[in-house]
Parts: sequence; C-alpha cells; structure tokens
Amino acid sequence: MNLLLLEPGEVDASGIARLTGRRLVHAREVLRVQATDRLRVGLRGGNVGLAEVVAVDETALVLRADLATAPPARPGVDLLLGMPRPKVLKRILPALASLGVDRIVLLNAATVEKSYFATPLLSPESVAELFSLGLEQARDTVVPQLLVQQRFRPFVEDELDALFPAPGPRLLAHPSAGGVAADPQFLTGGSTTGRALLAVGPEGGWVQFELDLLEARGFQRISLGARPLRTEVALPMLLGALQAMRARR
Amino acid sequence: MNLLLLEPGEVDASGIARLTGRRLVHAREVLRVQATDRLRVGLRGGNVGLAEVVAVDETALVLRADLATAPPARPGVDLLLGMPRPKVLKRILPALASLGVDRIVLLNAATVEKSYFATPLLSPESVAELFSLGLEQARDTVVPQLLVQQRFRPFVEDELDALFPAPGPRLLAHPSAGGVAADPQFLTGGSTTGRALLAVGPEGGWVQFELDLLEARGFQRISLGARPLRTEVALPMLLGALQAMRARR
Repeated sequence: MNLLLLEPGEVDASGIARLTGRRLVHAREVLRVQATDRLRVGLRGGNVGLAEVVAVDETALVLRADLATAPPARPGVDLLLGMPRPKVLKRILPALASLGVDRIVLLNAATVEKSYFATPLLSPESVAELFSLGLEQARDTVVPQLLVQQRFRPFVEDELDALFPAPGPRLLAHPSAGGVAADPQFLTGGSTTGRALLAVGPEGGWVQFELDLLEARGFQRISLGARPLRTEVALPMLLGALQAMRARR
Repeated sequence: MNLLLLEPGEVDASGIARLTGRRLVHAREVLRVQATDRLRVGLRGGNVGLAEVVAVDETALVLRADLATAPPARPGVDLLLGMPRPKVLKRILPALASLGVDRIVLLNAATVEKSYFATPLLSPESVAELFSLGLEQARDTVVPQLLVQQRFRPFVEDELDALFPAPGPRLLAHPSAGGVAADPQFLTGGSTTGRALLAVGPEGGWVQFELDLLEARGFQRISLGARPLRTEVALPMLLGALQAMRARR
C-alpha cells in the first residue's frame, strides 16, 4: 500500500479523518505508525497529499491530511475486454486501476464461458476493493468505471458509440494481426492522439463475426507480435506501447 | 497450453515422439486428443510445427511431428531484476519467458529481503517448469537463461560488462525518473537500437548507491510515469514501450 485512501465524508473541513477497520489494522500492524508520523493519503476521486498521525490506538487512527496535490496524470485509455476467467479478473482489475484506465467494459464473446459472469468478484463491494488495491499501489484516487455487458452484438451495434463518443483511435488487439516488429505502422499515423479505446479479446480470441463487427465500428487491428500472451501480460504491454508512441509526437 | 514442448532426444529421425507423464495427462484430459488430431508442438530450443497424433491411450501419446518453422522473433532484451518476493517471482518467470526475454539476472539489492533467495522456486526443476509454462503460452521454444546474484556490488562492478558485452542501450527503470508523458525523450535518440539491457528495481526501489553504481556502468534512467506499479505490471509495460519505439524507426 503506497497510499492510504480516504473516503469523501471522512475528512472534515480542517482535514481531520478518523479511521477504523482495515486501514487502522494496516496502519498499526504493517506500517506500525505512531503519533507525528506522516503518511501518503488520497481522497477517493480527489487530491493526494501527506497526513500527520494525530493519534493512534486500538480503536482509531486519527489523521490531519493536507490534500493539495492532483493525482497522477491519466493515459486517456478506455478498454473493451473479453470477459476473463475469475482468477485472471482478480489480478487484472487492480492492475487496470493502477495503470489509470478510465472505463472498462467486460464484454461477452463467443469463446467466453457464461459461468464467468456469475463470479462473486463482480459484486460492487468486491470490485471496489480490487480497484482500491490498484489505486493504493499507484498512488491514484480515481476509481475506474466498470460496465459488464453480456450481449456482444447489441452492445457493439447500439450502445458503444454513445458510450464512447470521443473521436480518438479505436484499436483492436488480435494475435493474428502481424506484430510490432513486422509492422512499422504499429500505432502510428493519426491514430494515437486523443482518447484511445482498446478492444482486447478473451483468452480464446475473437471470432470472425466479432472482428468484423468491431472493424465496422471503426476499430483498427493492432498486434504486439506473434506471441499469444496472457491477458495480464498483454494489457500492460499494450498500454506501454501506446504511451511510448504518444510520448514521441 | 498453446504448444506442446518436446525435449531434445524425445523425437526420433522420422519425427516420432512418445510422451508420458504431465503432457500425456494434459493431452488426454484437457485437450482430449484422439488419433489423427493435430497439435502445435515445439522442440525445446528448436523449431515449432504441427504433430499428428499417431496413437493415444493411458500409457502414452505417440506423435509424428513436422518441426519446420522457426520459433517467434525475439525482442532482443535482457533484464537485471531486483529479486522479487517468491509469490511475484512465480508469476514473473512465466511472463518473461512468454515475452521472449533472453537473459534474466535476479539481483540482490538493499531493499530485498535475504530470505527471498532461499525460495524453492529457484530450484532448477522449478525454474524449468515456470519457464515452460511461459513458452507453452507464447508458442516459443527458447528457454531464457537465469542467473541469481546475491552480491550487488561485485556483480555490477566486476561481472556485468563481461556478461553483457553488447553495445546496445542500458536502461534503468526507477519511479522517480520522470515519466513517459512528461518526457518526450523517453527511449528515444540512438538508445533503442541493438540489444537492450533493462534494470528494474525491487519492490522497495533502488537506493542511491545502487542507482549511482548502475549509472556509472552506462545505464540511463527511464520511467513509465509517476505511478508506482507492481513488478508484474511494470515489466510488460516496459517491454511494450521499448518494442513500440523500435517499430517506429
């Protein structure tokens, strides 16, 4: 935990917050904080800063927070992701929050098992906790938005454009599309400026019908090479590639 | 498993291989192969291709393999990595094999706990299994080389240059170095051509002495931004950024 997240309403006008529960236990047992120590804190959805420990005992951690700094810059990326297995989802949601992805649509696809959508990991409490882990890691406070879409075609045909009206690039990751090394046009041209919408297939890949439908909505195929990668490896790799291309313009 | 790895010596001159153990169980219970089915196979350290199932029963899987295709292109990257916690190491070694990293040095550093080096995950059998998982994922056959170095200074001062004589870029990832978005020089200039050697700190970061020593050996600081990321997120992100920069030249 590189940041202690405070909830709106927990911090009074003078910056005082009184914490109990998981954060108190963490502060006492892992961070071993004492009065006058300083901690990095952030207000969920707001600024980050330092907080001084005013008092700590077995009942509460009292902090005086100075929340004067904006949270880290965001890469300007949204994601359509073929629904992963629960075990993978549990690792990916914190990772995506730590990377600063703004909106995540977990999308059904032909090769996705229906049972994945029944996972208790998708409960609001669980999602909030998984995102908090990523925010605490990356010292961010901005919680990604998560949407779950169990019907691929109606979503892509009828809802996608309204949900993602930004004129930025739409990029479709699919292992057969060539590869970085083989394709000097990778993420080039006008296609990396503006807010990006990345579509990344499920473990079993997109089927032809899905590829066609996404391409009809303006998605351009990209690839990171001939190696099929695990979703949790491919996603940070794609974001790294995209950010590096943007940094060069 | 996207590829069944065959061992040198298992395949006779006519391409016939007889498998037992883990791969037989996987082929029967997960892939449910039958005679005349075709599987993707690869020879450890050699070519990849298709194999026809000649026979399969509870005692053995007999394949006739045609190993005519080279394994996927490699990114030309070696890695010095601050020794991770065992739990993280277990996920990172398969990921690095899947990404095609050639040599990996697990390096002690001031913020690394000594006990990490005692993990049974570093036994030759365990390392081979973790790398195989990554190769099977990425349809690769080339096993990375792993070196474990428990003494930072003697390694960096006396062994590093001999071990990595290539004239390519030496890049040092450290969260305080700036960030992609803020730094248009990220991975630019002449610094991305040739074999790259990436140094990535342990979870607790590099200390000043370590940074100074690495910079004295020609490492240039790079960063992926102000967000402290988990090692398993930062590594694919760095490789994606590096490959994207190279693809543009």
